[in-house]
Amino acid sequence: MAKSNNTEAFGFVLEDVPHLSDYIPHLPTYPDPLQDNPSYSVVKQYYVNEDDTIAQQIVVHKNSPRGIHFRRAGPAQKVYFDSEEVHACIVTCGGLCPGLNTVIRELVCGLYHMYGVHKVVGIQGGYRGFYSRNTVPLTPKVVNDIHKRGGTILGTSYGGHDTSRIVDSIQDRGINQVYILGGYGSQKEAALIFEEIRRRGLKVAVVGIPKTIDSDIPVIDKSIGFDTAVEEAQRAINSAHVEAESAENGIGVVKLMGRWSGFIAMYATLASRDVDCCLIPESPFYMEGPGGLLEFIEKRLKEHGHMVIVIAEGAGQELLSNNLSTMNKQDDDASPDKLLQDVGLWLSKKIKDYFAKSSKMAINLKYIDPTYMIRAIPSNASDNVYCTLLAQSAVHGAMAGYTGFTVGPVNGRNCYIPFHLINEGEKRVVITDRMWARLLSSTHQPSFLT
Amino acid sequence: MAKSNNTEAFGFVLEDVPHLSDYIPHLPTYPDPLQDNPSYSVVKQYYVNEDDTIAQQIVVHKNSPRGIHFRRAGPAQKVYFDSEEVHACIVTCGGLCPGLNTVIRELVCGLYHMYGVHKVVGIQGGYRGFYSRNTVPLTPKVVNDIHKRGGTILGTSYGGHDTSRIVDSIQDRGINQVYILGGYGSQKEAALIFEEIRRRGLKVAVVGIPKTIDSDIPVIDKSIGFDTAVEEAQRAINSAHVEAESAENGIGVVKLMGRWSGFIAMYATLASRDVDCCLIPESPFYMEGPGGLLEFIEKRLKEHGHMVIVIAEGAGQELLSNNLSTMNKQDDDASPDKLLQDVGLWLSKKIKDYFAKSSKMAINLKYIDPTYMIRAIPSNASDNVYCTLLAQSAVHGAMAGYTGFTVGPVNGRNCYIPFHLINEGEKRVVITDRMWARLLSSTHQPSFLT
Amino acid sequence: MAKSNNTEAFGFVLEDVPHLSDYIPHLPTYPDPLQDNPSYSVVKQYYVNEDDTIAQQIVVHKNSPRGIHFRRAGPAQKVYFDSEEVHACIVTCGGLCPGLNTVIRELVCGLYHMYGVHKVVGIQGGYRGFYSRNTVPLTPKVVNDIHKRGGTILGTSYGGHDTSRIVDSIQDRGINQVYILGGYGSQKEAALIFEEIRRRGLKVAVVGIPKTIDSDIPVIDKSIGFDTAVEEAQRAINSAHVEAESAENGIGVVKLMGRWSGFIAMYATLASRDVDCCLIPESPFYMEGPGGLLEFIEKRLKEHGHMVIVIAEGAGQELLSNNLSTMNKQDDDASPDKLLQDVGLWLSKKIKDYFAKSSKMAINLKYIDPTYMIRAIPSNASDNVYCTLLAQSAVHGAMAGYTGFTVGPVNGRNCYIPFHLINEGEKRVVITDRMWARLLSSTHQPSFLT
Amino acid sequence: MAKSNNTEAFGFVLEDVPHLSDYIPHLPTYPDPLQDNPSYSVVKQYYVNEDDTIAQQIVVHKNSPRGIHFRRAGPAQKVYFDSEEVHACIVTCGGLCPGLNTVIRELVCGLYHMYGVHKVVGIQGGYRGFYSRNTVPLTPKVVNDIHKRGGTILGTSYGGHDTSRIVDSIQDRGINQVYILGGYGSQKEAALIFEEIRRRGLKVAVVGIPKTIDSDIPVIDKSIGFDTAVEEAQRAINSAHVEAESAENGIGVVKLMGRWSGFIAMYATLASRDVDCCLIPESPFYMEGPGGLLEFIEKRLKEHGHMVIVIAEGAGQELLSNNLSTMNKQDDDASPDKLLQDVGLWLSKKIKDYFAKSSKMAINLKYIDPTYMIRAIPSNASDNVYCTLLAQSAVHGAMAGYTGFTVGPVNGRNCYIPFHLINEGEKRVVITDRMWARLLSSTHQPSFLT
Repeated sequence: MAKSNNTEAFGFVLEDVPHLSDYIPHLPTYPDPLQDNPSYSVVKQYYVNEDDTIAQQIVVHKNSPRGIHFRRAGPAQKVYFDSEEVHACIVTCGGLCPGLNTVIRELVCGLYHMYGVHKVVGIQGGYRGFYSRNTVPLTPKVVNDIHKRGGTILGTSYGGHDTSRIVDSIQDRGINQVYILGGYGSQKEAALIFEEIRRRGLKVAVVGIPKTIDSDIPVIDKSIGFDTAVEEAQRAINSAHVEAESAENGIGVVKLMGRWSGFIAMYATLASRDVDCCLIPESPFYMEGPGGLLEFIEKRLKEHGHMVIVIAEGAGQELLSNNLSTMNKQDDDASPDKLLQDVGLWLSKKIKDYFAKSSKMAINLKYIDPTYMIRAIPSNASDNVYCTLLAQSAVHGAMAGYTGFTVGPVNGRNCYIPFHLINEGEKRVVITDRMWARLLSSTHQPSFLT
Repeated sequence: MAKSNNTEAFGFVLEDVPHLSDYIPHLPTYPDPLQDNPSYSVVKQYYVNEDDTIAQQIVVHKNSPRGIHFRRAGPAQKVYFDSEEVHACIVTCGGLCPGLNTVIRELVCGLYHMYGVHKVVGIQGGYRGFYSRNTVPLTPKVVNDIHKRGGTILGTSYGGHDTSRIVDSIQDRGINQVYILGGYGSQKEAALIFEEIRRRGLKVAVVGIPKTIDSDIPVIDKSIGFDTAVEEAQRAINSAHVEAESAENGIGVVKLMGRWSGFIAMYATLASRDVDCCLIPESPFYMEGPGGLLEFIEKRLKEHGHMVIVIAEGAGQELLSNNLSTMNKQDDDASPDKLLQDVGLWLSKKIKDYFAKSSKMAINLKYIDPTYMIRAIPSNASDNVYCTLLAQSAVHGAMAGYTGFTVGPVNGRNCYIPFHLINEGEKRVVITDRMWARLLSSTHQPSFLT
Repeated sequence: MAKSNNTEAFGFVLEDVPHLSDYIPHLPTYPDPLQDNPSYSVVKQYYVNEDDTIAQQIVVHKNSPRGIHFRRAGPAQKVYFDSEEVHACIVTCGGLCPGLNTVIRELVCGLYHMYGVHKVVGIQGGYRGFYSRNTVPLTPKVVNDIHKRGGTILGTSYGGHDTSRIVDSIQDRGINQVYILGGYGSQKEAALIFEEIRRRGLKVAVVGIPKTIDSDIPVIDKSIGFDTAVEEAQRAINSAHVEAESAENGIGVVKLMGRWSGFIAMYATLASRDVDCCLIPESPFYMEGPGGLLEFIEKRLKEHGHMVIVIAEGAGQELLSNNLSTMNKQDDDASPDKLLQDVGLWLSKKIKDYFAKSSKMAINLKYIDPTYMIRAIPSNASDNVYCTLLAQSAVHGAMAGYTGFTVGPVNGRNCYIPFHLINEGEKRVVITDRMWARLLSSTHQPSFLT
Repeated sequence: MAKSNNTEAFGFVLEDVPHLSDYIPHLPTYPDPLQDNPSYSVVKQYYVNEDDTIAQQIVVHKNSPRGIHFRRAGPAQKVYFDSEEVHACIVTCGGLCPGLNTVIRELVCGLYHMYGVHKVVGIQGGYRGFYSRNTVPLTPKVVNDIHKRGGTILGTSYGGHDTSRIVDSIQDRGINQVYILGGYGSQKEAALIFEEIRRRGLKVAVVGIPKTIDSDIPVIDKSIGFDTAVEEAQRAINSAHVEAESAENGIGVVKLMGRWSGFIAMYATLASRDVDCCLIPESPFYMEGPGGLLEFIEKRLKEHGHMVIVIAEGAGQELLSNNLSTMNKQDDDASPDKLLQDVGLWLSKKIKDYFAKSSKMAINLKYIDPTYMIRAIPSNASDNVYCTLLAQSAVHGAMAGYTGFTVGPVNGRNCYIPFHLINEGEKRVVITDRMWARLLSSTHQPSFLT
């Protein structure tokens, strides 16, 4: 397929990704090693057609334009790396989410078993590990059982974005495939690394793997560990419900992840059905006066005797006073995102103060923050399969010579998405549409629109 | 949109579904009650456009034809039932799967809270309950907590397909919306019920909700409880792995659901990574001789000292001798499908006999059949959300006057699919393609092709 | 057996419990209804001998004195209540713990099925429910499934100790068996209720059932829900461990229940093996200087790169400054015990400040408070059996005319223990002996003795 | 304390255990290394008094004899092994149960951390590993995480009882502490090994650690993994209950472990409360005629519409005809115990035949055999602590020079019990007394006594 990031020649727009051959002339190609792989050679057409694309717009009308398409992920008929030549590295950046170890495992096993690549190393402790730590060799034996553990065996950190030192390290170590598991900020840095590598004309494929438990990365359907997180959040909601029910005017408040988008809070609420009010960043609310949250709480307590509130960590940030002591911050991560106040503690205090002041009724509020207990668990079966496909898609893309892309599912199919769409796009948020109406209908909470 | 099941006027083929107005003239319509529902009226464009369709073909090439599309599920701007007029019934048919109670709950709550429908009854014990049992009233209060329990509160059974008695009962009781949760056979009967209702000219919407843990229903992405089943299957595989590892030449055999299609076995294997061989109905295998299963087992035992085999219940049926005692059948279900022999016991015996006869090595085989322990658990969070959307889509469709359709996700979006595509289509099976290659590559098992 | 609370006539000291006949003369007795109960009449000697006692001192030396013994719990050969006459009530007081609903269930089912008692009511919302709320009738059908839910179906609260209004209510309602599930403070109030009832000469049996997740009630082996709590605490410790391991100089801090005694913290630490330091109220520690906690943390981080600290909520209270903002208190319970500061937040801040100030190393601390997620879960199988025996023992004791006692296991056998031993005894604490040495040996933490 | 296995000089009978000094004269002793261990030296009296004994009879009457006592387990003030001299081995024999890996871990860590012993090896694959396999070195690092996995890292097998080859191997390898984890048969072989070692006059301590999930070992309170097994059995019972409830005349049959004793079945039934009938080896039953099981099933189905039956694997063996095909046997273990027929399949067939023949009602029976799914899981927190104490007690005993004993809890305290009491005693069974009456009262099943 001719390079053409924006063409109407196909009947649609193809948002294609960069290729090593774009800036390195006369790159040799090799026959696809999968054709000699007994697992692949027996199945019908194991490779994807170079012309395969995936439509972003899945809801269509008669004669509507076909819109943006992405390159489909999968094994290619010819590859741009000789297996012996490949020296891959893997790095995990930012906060934890379930599934990181599964992706690491499947990158290693995919490179080994599909392509016969035996040089894979791990970068320790996030981006800064490129220039400040030794690498660790990764083999199928080393990673065999790691998918059953939470966290990341490579360690992780925020920051460390020193592009030139990172690319120096890549160049010096002779690494030619870089797999970066990271969220919003880390994908931005991945783009800078790719640009620098292209500037230097290096034959190094840079592949992003979207990692954010908030599921707020643009374009793609959902991110690693999301299903597991929603599942585990049920525990906290159940506990809040039991505590609330067992007390007079009991209120259970559960804070869930979600700095810019409330997907976890919304899905956890829809799955649980024990929640009376779900607050997310995308849908503003206010506390005082008619139609406000406090009035709603009072009303619900009078009707039911108890209630459960789920709040995403990014909800209502605009309401928090800045003089709130930061003493309560329980998290040392250096991420700038984390300058958010703890809205769960704030909300709990506001509610207590209201009822203490009004002296209308004595309440009994219990606040639960299950964040670390959710982030740190191993991924469930569904996420394991998801991570496997993601990792294998990443490997196929790099072997095929694509670079500067993030891999991820669009309408259920893994695609290669150019970095700029991930980084320039707005964060994926809950559009307050049908799904949100569904939630409102299940909680019977007010919309907090004046 | 004009009725047109096969038109190219749109630039694609729309496989549309029947509508009550197709055979009942002059049906009155009513404004959408959702516009007065505070949960819906606050969000942008809560209803779906009548022209919205979903493409079945998601992988496209330049200028490729747009293929088959389905009607998108969702709230319509005008409805064909007055809320007061609706008398809905729900029936569950066939074997258990996780999520039945969630669908029942959400049908009831959806009808009540979205449309103000208050007459909903449950049919007890499957199809035969229409003519042999009393109905039970279903209210939001009754169904409030049932999603936390496995099974179905309505009871279920196989068979009972007496179309005219069923339609008599529907007519006599004044029921005008029929929600049928059932698998392959039950959807076929749902189509017969719809045909008879159309023949009699009754204003009764018939809606199928696909229920089969095997996920073998054509067209749709996956069925209720699939994620939960794959998750729960991990337990059995883990146990088989521990037993096998702790013994000399230990073999763990796990039988999983899947009569015609091996999706559960395949996904459970991919999620677990502890499986050495996965056998599914779609990929034949043979026991004896070079390249056969027994040879592979012997080889794997010599290399690793233990192995785990996962077998779908429908795999290898052609190999089973018919004189196998049926004494071992552990299931009384009257489903004709269930005339399958217990392939897990058969395989276990074959392996034991082989090693006993060859006296090459003493083995230690443990057979685990977790079927009922998987079917009977409550649905997980992911399936709860899936069931919620399915149930609400079903309700929107019936209220909008559509009938004779099954609701289900196509490329991640819920659609209305005409019964004939479900019933005349082939069962959905694992296509032995890239995903199967992925599995072969993870287990390193032979392909058993001569 | 003659009434004799302190006699050496038996070769040991019997700490016997009060009996209704002590202060009500000429009480009629009835033959044991169990002899007509088919479940009991078939087994050998279903009743316990009136002379059966249990030794408190289980470790003995040659010719050592036999020490204190307690009356063994169990069915008696004659009872002091006619089944028709019994009007029992159940009340739950104080904070939640796993197993409350199981005890309620088994009290109700024990009274019904063993003794044919059909008048059982629940007091709602703790002690104050006696005089401010309606009672709720409790039948085997009502309580059938409640043991699968956390919390208490009766609701609970702290305080409400108005002895005369409570006894008035008991007298006015004609209640003659009072089952009180409560902890330290609630058992004290139970004793006052018993005294007032004896003063008024009422034929009312008052039975205490020890409920405190901290397991700090004197004399008895352990309390309801302890096993479940230790099990559930593993989740939080695991998460803390994963978070700590995935970060550079990662520290996971987990706060567990235990105001006066560190049993949960100690057992959870011994069960987990991922803990580097366990801090309990019984074993003082200090922060600064040589041999202090901060020095140990620094040392452990340098050696292992990460560490996990478990702290009981009552540990180190003497170290907390009183000017700590109470804004962080996440609990509204009115229990005076709860004036404890949140030592977990305090400790986390102290550690962060130390490393920030010393600027020797950047740390990454995550604080987890799983308290409510532990308290609110249903009891596990082991606790269910424990609760069943406790409830049945309570019922046997009341039917046999004993009163003013707490029921609980001593060396594995349920006994009746007079209130004064429970209330005047010191709280049960971790004796810093062999078990504590075991813990120190497993964590390799210092003893913090100067 | 003078050696005296049967003396009344103490006021009780002490069933003491052998000591190396009984048959090896002039053995040197060493000061207890724990006194230099910082974890132990800080606590009050870390060692147990040599005179400490534990009473077997805990229920006593006035002036009743004090009966049999056992030597209390724990650290001694002087030891008979120099730490440098110790060469310990660990072997696991027979079937799996939860907790084996925890015991292995704690033996290794106990020897290392408490006594500074660094030579510990594992015998692979059960008794025959002594003479047919290499040993594996065991260090705290190797065993660090094994308690989180089910099974045994050493592997296990039945049989291999070749006493002289085993003792040859012990002697040749210079092993002087032998820790044997095994059940009934394996403890018998341990006794033979001890006798042979004594005959040869070797300074080798032989310690048995009771391992049988059935909890049928005499004298001791319960065995490793029992709590975990009862907990996990709840899953199977829940599933059987859901399946039974969802079908017309649904019957769920669950087979649980228990060849000679029904403890697991009984406790699982008491914990669950969803069971209608529990059948154990100790309480015979009959099928046909008035008062028989089939009549009871029919009655219960008519009343409730469904029922759940739990049957221990050893129950009703006398009823099984010997011509039952052994084809169904799912277990290759060479244990002679395993010649039991599969009573669960037999019972299921009997019930089906009865209702098919009587044609009174169509039933729907589901049979669940969760045996391997229970045996293979990791131990829960409670069992982890239990295993830790057991392992440390074993180590203390061997270091103190005791031999030929099994370690286990008696009335909650770990004791050293001479092999002959374990091996000559009858298997521990459910005495059909108060606990059994409790069960009958909870299930309302008949006693099946004519």
